[in-house]
Amino acid sequence: MKARFITIEGVEGVGKSTNIAVLEEMLRERSIDHIRTREPGGTGLAESIRALLLEGQDGRPAALSELLLIFAARADHLEKIIAPALEQGKWVICDRFTDATFAYQGGGRGLPRETIAALESMVQGELRPDLTVILDLDPEIGLDRVRRRGKLDRIEQETGDFHARVRDCYLDIARREAGRCVVIDASADPDVVRQALQAAVADKLPELR
Amino acid sequence: MKARFITIEGVEGVGKSTNIAVLEEMLRERSIDHIRTREPGGTGLAESIRALLLEGQDGRPAALSELLLIFAARADHLEKIIAPALEQGKWVICDRFTDATFAYQGGGRGLPRETIAALESMVQGELRPDLTVILDLDPEIGLDRVRRRGKLDRIEQETGDFHARVRDCYLDIARREAGRCVVIDASADPDVVRQALQAAVADKLPELR
Repeated sequence: MKARFITIEGVEGVGKSTNIAVLEEMLRERSIDHIRTREPGGTGLAESIRALLLEGQDGRPAALSELLLIFAARADHLEKIIAPALEQGKWVICDRFTDATFAYQGGGRGLPRETIAALESMVQGELRPDLTVILDLDPEIGLDRVRRRGKLDRIEQETGDFHARVRDCYLDIARREAGRCVVIDASADPDVVRQALQAAVADKLPELR
Repeated sequence: MKARFITIEGVEGVGKSTNIAVLEEMLRERSIDHIRTREPGGTGLAESIRALLLEGQDGRPAALSELLLIFAARADHLEKIIAPALEQGKWVICDRFTDATFAYQGGGRGLPRETIAALESMVQGELRPDLTVILDLDPEIGLDRVRRRGKLDRIEQETGDFHARVRDCYLDIARREAGRCVVIDASADPDVVRQALQAAVADKLPELR
C-alpha cells in the first residue's frame, strides 16, 4: 500500500487539532503506520523559523521574506521528516502545508500566485498531498475561539479582511483542485463534523473505507 | 549624484572589515553620505536568521532551506535598509551579498546556479551592485587567521574543498562580470592591498577619483 500524504487546512480556530485526532483514529483502527506533523515546523530548524514568524520581536517581516521563511522551513521539513516517512511507507498527516501559503501569503498578504507556485516547484518538485481536508468556517467565529484560548500570534492579530481573504482563497483552491480537496463545514456540531470528515475521507481514499 | 551600491566579497578571513574601513574613509573624505551593513543580516529579523544559519543548534539545515533562509534575510534587508538608503541618496557598502550565495551555496554546497538566479530575480528584481570588490586569498590562509580569532561558525567549519570551491566560484564571477567586479590580491601587505583597492575603486567609480 502506497503511503498517503494528507494535509489539513483552514482558518484560525477552525478545529484542525480535533479533526486530525479523528483522522489518526481512522488510521489506528486500520493499523496504518503514520506520523503527525505540522507547518511551519516539524524539525528543530523549522520550529525556530515558526517562532520567528509568529512571535519574532523584530517587527513585521517584509512579505516576501515571510514567504521565503515559510518555504525554508518546508524544505527542511520535507527533506528530514516528510519524504523519509513516505519512503518508509508511513502515512503523513500534516497540520497545514502549501495551500496555507497560497491562502495566507497569497490571499492574505497579496503576494502573486506565480511567485508562490515557483517556490512550490523549487521546494517540492512533483510532491503534492494525496488528500487535503479544508475545514471551512466564518473566520470571525474561529477567531473568537482563538481569543478565548489566550494571547494572539502575529497572524491571528491580522484584520478581519485578511482572514476573509484567506478563507476565500481556501475555497477557491477546493474548487480548482476538487480531486484532491474536500471541504468540511466546520460550523456544525463536532459529532456532525466528525461524521462528515470520516465519510469524505473514505470516499477519497479507498484504503479507509 | 546617483547613490552607489558597493559589495565586498571573499573567503573567510580575507580581510573584509579592514578593507571596508578603507572604502568608508574614501567616502568620508569626499563627504559622501553612506551606510555600512552586512549579509546575512542588517535587520533584526535578518540577524536572527543569520544566527540560525551560523549558530543554530538544530543540526545542519537542508541545503535548499539554507538558500531560502539567506534570501529571506536578503528580502527583509533590501526592503527595510538597502532600498530606502539608495532612494535617499545614501551609498550602501555591504559586507557580502548575492555573489556570496552563488559562491557558498552554489559553489560550496553544489546547489544549481539557475535556482539561485531565480531567487535573485524574485527578491532583487533588477537591483545589482554597482561595484563588487572580490578580495582573493588562498582559503587555507584565511581560515588560519579565523582560527586564531576563536570559535568557528558552521560555515567556517566546512572542509577545505568547500572553501576552495567558494574561491573558484568568486573568481569565475569576476571573469564573467568583469564590468562590475574587481579582484584584489589579499595575500599582499595590508598597505599594498589598501593602495590596490583604492586604485581599483577609483578606476571603476569616477566619483571616487
